[in-house]
Amino acid sequence: MFESHTGALQDSSSKVYLRPETAQGIFVNFKNVMDSTRVKIPFGIAQIGKAFRNEVNPRNFTFRSREFEQMEIEFFCNPKESRMWYEFWRDLRKGWYTSLGIKSGNLRPREQGKEELAHYSVGTTDIEYLFPFSDEPQELEGVAHRGDFDLKAHGKHSKNNENAFEVIEESEPRSSDRADLADSESPRGLKSAARFVPHVIEPSAGADRFTLAVICEAYSFDEKRASPEFMKFHPRLAPIKAAVFPLVAKDGLPEIAEPIFREIKKAFPAQYDVKQSIGKRYARMDEAGTPFCFTIDGQSKEDGTVTVRNRDDASQIRIDKSRCLEYLREQLRL
Amino acid sequence: MFESHTGALQDSSSKVYLRPETAQGIFVNFKNVMDSTRVKIPFGIAQIGKAFRNEVNPRNFTFRSREFEQMEIEFFCNPKESRMWYEFWRDLRKGWYTSLGIKSGNLRPREQGKEELAHYSVGTTDIEYLFPFSDEPQELEGVAHRGDFDLKAHGKHSKNNENAFEVIEESEPRSSDRADLADSESPRGLKSAARFVPHVIEPSAGADRFTLAVICEAYSFDEKRASPEFMKFHPRLAPIKAAVFPLVAKDGLPEIAEPIFREIKKAFPAQYDVKQSIGKRYARMDEAGTPFCFTIDGQSKEDGTVTVRNRDDASQIRIDKSRCLEYLREQLRL
Repeated sequence: MFESHTGALQDSSSKVYLRPETAQGIFVNFKNVMDSTRVKIPFGIAQIGKAFRNEVNPRNFTFRSREFEQMEIEFFCNPKESRMWYEFWRDLRKGWYTSLGIKSGNLRPREQGKEELAHYSVGTTDIEYLFPFSDEPQELEGVAHRGDFDLKAHGKHSKNNENAFEVIEESEPRSSDRADLADSESPRGLKSAARFVPHVIEPSAGADRFTLAVICEAYSFDEKRASPEFMKFHPRLAPIKAAVFPLVAKDGLPEIAEPIFREIKKAFPAQYDVKQSIGKRYARMDEAGTPFCFTIDGQSKEDGTVTVRNRDDASQIRIDKSRCLEYLREQLRL
Repeated sequence: MFESHTGALQDSSSKVYLRPETAQGIFVNFKNVMDSTRVKIPFGIAQIGKAFRNEVNPRNFTFRSREFEQMEIEFFCNPKESRMWYEFWRDLRKGWYTSLGIKSGNLRPREQGKEELAHYSVGTTDIEYLFPFSDEPQELEGVAHRGDFDLKAHGKHSKNNENAFEVIEESEPRSSDRADLADSESPRGLKSAARFVPHVIEPSAGADRFTLAVICEAYSFDEKRASPEFMKFHPRLAPIKAAVFPLVAKDGLPEIAEPIFREIKKAFPAQYDVKQSIGKRYARMDEAGTPFCFTIDGQSKEDGTVTVRNRDDASQIRIDKSRCLEYLREQLRL
C-alpha cells in the first residue's frame, strides 16, 4: 500500500494509507444506507473510484498501474438465497462484457476451485481476458461470494458484536413501520427466526483494464480498405457516435448538413467535417472508431435523402434527412 | 502535499507526491492533444479528477478536505485575444452557477486587485459563495488569466526552450497540410510573424465545494407545509427527477401508473411508490428534492389525465397520461 502522513508531523500517529480498494467504504456505509433510504434486502451499493497499489513493477500499458479506477458492487442478500444471487451476478457480469463487444473467445470466465476458495465462500469467478501482450488470460473482474465475512468483521471491530449488522427479514418494503412489526411478534421470536447478517456478493472490476480490453478488441486491420487500420468499437462505447459530411463545401450542401449536425450534437458526441476528400474523412472516422457517417450529396437536394455509411463494412444506405437522429438512436439503442 | 514512496524501498529516489491540482497534467499533454486531434487555437482541454492537499485542519463539512474533486479547463488562445477570452470565461462561469440555481445574492465574484495579480496575469476572478457556516464568502472557483507562464515553464524544463510549445497562427483548421503551409511561406517569415506561445485562461473549480453550495442553497423550510423541510434543487441537479404514485394500490390505478413509470425510468432517475398516504409520499419526495410527482387517481380512469405536482409550490395541474415524459423533458430541458 502507499503510505503517507496527514498534518504537519510525520510520526506513527499521523500515518495513513491510500485505499487499496473501494469496497471497505461500502461496508462502513451499509447501515447508513439501510437507515436513510428505503431499500430492503436484497439490494446493492455500487461505487466507482480511484484505488492505489504500490506495484513494484507496473507494466503492460494500463493493465498493472499504481493508480487505477475500480468499480465495485456489494450486493447484500439473505443467506438462504446467496448461492442463487452469486450465480445471477456471475452470469450477468459475463454477459455485460459480451454485450459491449468483447468477443467470447477472448473472454475466459474461470471458476475458482474449492481449494482456492476462502472458507466462507461458496464460489468465486474470475472473468479473464486474453490480452495480445500476454500468453495467459488476465483478470478483468472477480465475482466473489463473500458470505457474511465483511459485515461480521466490521461489526466486531466497531461494536465488538459480530451481529451488529443484522437485519430483520421482511416481505414488505421497510419503512417507518418497523415498530409495528416488532409489536406483532415477540422479540425472542424475531431474534431466532427473522434476523440475519446479510451475505454479500461482490463483483469487483478494473475500469482501466476493461478499457484496455475494449481498445485491444476494437483494433482491426483490413488491407483492402483505404485506411487499413480502424477501431471497431461497440457503438455504445465509441467516443464519437456520428459524423456529418457535406460532400462538397458548396452548392447548398453545408446548408442541409449543418442542421442535421446540430440536431445530432445535442444528443450525442458528433463531428462535422467539410475538409478534404470524402474518402479521407471516412478514414479519419474509421480510425477514431465512429460507427456512422452521414453524407449529404447532390441527390440530397433532389429527394431529401442522405447517405449513412457503416464503419464496419463500409456499406451505405440512403435514409430521409429528417431521420438521422432517429436512425442513430435505433442503432445505438440509446 | 502528501508524500509517499513507490516501490519497495523508501529512500529519496523513490519519493512521490499526490498531485495537488489536476492542471499540470493538461499542460504536459498540450502538445500531444495538438498533434493527435484536429483542434486549432483557440481550444480548451477540460479535466475532472481527484486532487490531494495535506490540510492541517480539515473543516466545514466537505469545504476543506484532504482529498477533493477538482474540475479545470485550460483554454489556449492567441495572446492578442487573451483578454477577451478571460472576460468570456469569467462571465460564462459566473453564469453557470446562476443557471444551476445558485442565487446571485450568495454568489460573489471578486476580481483580484492589481496588487494581488501575478506579473504575467491581466486578471483573476474568484467566484465566491457565502456559505451559512461562514461570515465571509469562500472560493468555489478561480478564473485566472495565466498568460504564457505555464507553457513557457514546461518548455524550459522539458527542452530548455521556453518557446518549445509555440504554435503557428492559421485561420484554417489544422490538418495534415501543415507542410503545404510551410511551403507557401518562408520559414523565417513564419517564425517572426505567425508563431506564438498560447496564453492560457484557467477556470479551476472544486466539485465538492459546488456540491456543498448546491445543498446549502437547496435547503428550504416552510412551516406551513406538511413536511416543513425540503430541498429545492434545480431540476437538472435533483438526484431523482420524478416520482409516479397511484393514489391507491388497487382499482386499476397501478396498471395505469406502472407503464408511465417504466417510460420515465428509461430516460431519468425516477421512483415508484404505492405505500402510505399520498401526503407522506409527497413529503418524502420533497425531502429528496424531487421536482415533479405524477399521481394517478380515479379521474385518470375516466379521462386519461394524471396530476403533476410541483415540489416548489405544491401546485397541481392535470395533463394527459401520454404526455408525462414529454412534460418532464420540457421542464428539465433535457
